Amino acid sequence: MQKIRLGVVGLGRAFSLMLPTFLADTRVQLVAACDPRATARAQFEADFDAPSFDDIDALARRPDIDAIYIASPHQLHAVHTRIAAAHGKHVLVEKPMALSLAECDDMIDACRVADVHLIVGHCHSFDTPYLRTRELIASGAFGAVRMIHALNYTDYLYRPRRPEELKTEEGGGAVFSQAAHQVDIVRMLAGSRATRIRAAVGKWDAKRPTEGAYTATLWFENGAFATLCYNGYAHFDSDEWTGWIGEMGQQRNADEYGVARRKLSRVTSSDDEARLKAAGTYGGNAYTPVSPVADARRHQHFGPLIVSCERGDLRPLPHQIVVYGDERRECIELEAPSVPRAEVIDELIGAVHGGIAPLHDGEWARGTLEICLAMLRSNAESRDVLIGG
Amino acid sequence: MQKIRLGVVGLGRAFSLMLPTFLADTRVQLVAACDPRATARAQFEADFDAPSFDDIDALARRPDIDAIYIASPHQLHAVHTRIAAAHGKHVLVEKPMALSLAECDDMIDACRVADVHLIVGHCHSFDTPYLRTRELIASGAFGAVRMIHALNYTDYLYRPRRPEELKTEEGGGAVFSQAAHQVDIVRMLAGSRATRIRAAVGKWDAKRPTEGAYTATLWFENGAFATLCYNGYAHFDSDEWTGWIGEMGQQRNADEYGVARRKLSRVTSSDDEARLKAAGTYGGNAYTPVSPVADARRHQHFGPLIVSCERGDLRPLPHQIVVYGDERRECIELEAPSVPRAEVIDELIGAVHGGIAPLHDGEWARGTLEICLAMLRSNAESRDVLIGG
Repeated sequence: MQKIRLGVVGLGRAFSLMLPTFLADTRVQLVAACDPRATARAQFEADFDAPSFDDIDALARRPDIDAIYIASPHQLHAVHTRIAAAHGKHVLVEKPMALSLAECDDMIDACRVADVHLIVGHCHSFDTPYLRTRELIASGAFGAVRMIHALNYTDYLYRPRRPEELKTEEGGGAVFSQAAHQVDIVRMLAGSRATRIRAAVGKWDAKRPTEGAYTATLWFENGAFATLCYNGYAHFDSDEWTGWIGEMGQQRNADEYGVARRKLSRVTSSDDEARLKAAGTYGGNAYTPVSPVADARRHQHFGPLIVSCERGDLRPLPHQIVVYGDERRECIELEAPSVPRAEVIDELIGAVHGGIAPLHDGEWARGTLEICLAMLRSNAESRDVLIGG
Repeated sequence: MQKIRLGVVGLGRAFSLMLPTFLADTRVQLVAACDPRATARAQFEADFDAPSFDDIDALARRPDIDAIYIASPHQLHAVHTRIAAAHGKHVLVEKPMALSLAECDDMIDACRVADVHLIVGHCHSFDTPYLRTRELIASGAFGAVRMIHALNYTDYLYRPRRPEELKTEEGGGAVFSQAAHQVDIVRMLAGSRATRIRAAVGKWDAKRPTEGAYTATLWFENGAFATLCYNGYAHFDSDEWTGWIGEMGQQRNADEYGVARRKLSRVTSSDDEARLKAAGTYGGNAYTPVSPVADARRHQHFGPLIVSCERGDLRPLPHQIVVYGDERRECIELEAPSVPRAEVIDELIGAVHGGIAPLHDGEWARGTLEICLAMLRSNAESRDVLIGG
């Protein structure tokens, strides 16, 4: 079995969401980390018996690292990627790839010059139900994709946030954080180049002054169009339409209601909120350690989605893909994942050790960011924005 | 109890969908009808012991008629309304009101000059769950409407059709027939004037060459926006998200699948299809008579819909309205209707006998048609179309 030695940049929320993967996937070895928070570094050293740094250069210099997982705040992705590449390390960088196309170009260039792979993720387009749906479409059995409908109603904006996560110009808000998933999934399933977008964006809470919601129509070269809709201010929870399986594949309790808003109502200031977030994150005093034994979860997902093709509709769900054909409805059952997000490690190891071109490379992720930026512009200018033009 | 004596113009599909109402609502008396089909006229005479005609003028001249229900093909609504008004009869005309704004203006003028009421419906915006949701919004308890999501996945395009129903220029297709419902509901709930729309329309089956699907974003003066999505080519059926209660309020069988496509696949020509449709319609040899006893149905609906307000989301369903508030989730149970579509008769009698200005008057319905026409134009011209400009 081919292994990969990872250095981690940023031990925050994104890292804590990848940690179950790193712990359960025996192909991964965490060999070093860096983070500005001493408590997080101390926990990393204790958990992994491995060194940690407050400085990315010290990490990147280490010869025992194959690839660097960059999970720093969005606005640092570009500079951290450049450093990793300069030290000849492959890069796995969290979504959104960066905040501008110029940064993306810079990252792509840096990795090309250094001859290292650049993979952007985790993103929910790595989730097996979507990858399998893509294969079903590619089989040709259902004809051309005509229309995709993706929606997600969550309490996104009311989860604890650092102040910068509520500032669009610093990469905060639902377009940078959440459309990054939905756009990526929809592009992958459409299987065609996006050509134009028209979006409306909601920025409705003066206390949390970033985008919390959007709706968009995305057109593709092959004639298909997609409806993307996200409401992070929602009270309705669209997990009701995915069998109460949550985004992380967990079984949710349908009777639990309004938890995020209730917790947040007890927070008195943005400092207080940042502390609450930090406390619950890796190294924080309210952090719940991840069990190294993978639990019985379903696949992860990003809300209800229906792909309508000429001869059938496909509906990826956390435990199955429902295939609605001309004559019959069938369910393709999906085995529960033994390792969550193993698809990311598959792609990373495939690239680094197998020379297999990754699906989620820099060019691909740049395409998604371009669409997210175009959403903001379409809303601001009240018109269609052309993509790739 | 105030009664209304109705003359019926057109004994086709729309009439057969209103017939349960006419039979169960003791306020309604059907006193005459006209239709070009002799078999339909014969059935009407037998069922109601009332005269029928092949000519609308003969019907409209009758002094024992208070109002005329115009359920003729879409392209005849305007001319039939003019005749009814000229004879001093109030008008209840099926949606879509007409095929052009000029026709709408003409109908509105004719009714104003004749001093008769003009009501457009049935339309699903008459359905109690939407009317009650509108009242909840108007109470102010949830703050301003921010965003509405309405979707509907059906087999609309594969139900038996007359050839003209598959020609957009004659009022066929999902925009004239189906958006007429969805737009009307969404406008009513937004409670504000629509200002612009951007739509994409799907016309994907050369054998049925009209619009079968669309997605649209509709903006309102109060800042709210709505996503409207319809797929009448669908294999997925969105009644799954309304507890398998169908559009007509009937309990559906979740195991039944693909019936419309299967039936249609046995049809060999468009004549054959028109015959199939006629056979199943009032007066046809395969027509199933409506039971005069109202059955145990829920309210009618037009697909899943969520209204997101500042302090809560509202989700009208056929049997309840789910209120997702900041703190709790509650269900407002709706009594099953004793008469289907009684809301239409309420509004008609309220106007004719009570002098209550109807909600669904000509000006209102003209506004919905304007938006439907703008959807077609937005798609054709690949840009936003301003409404009421």
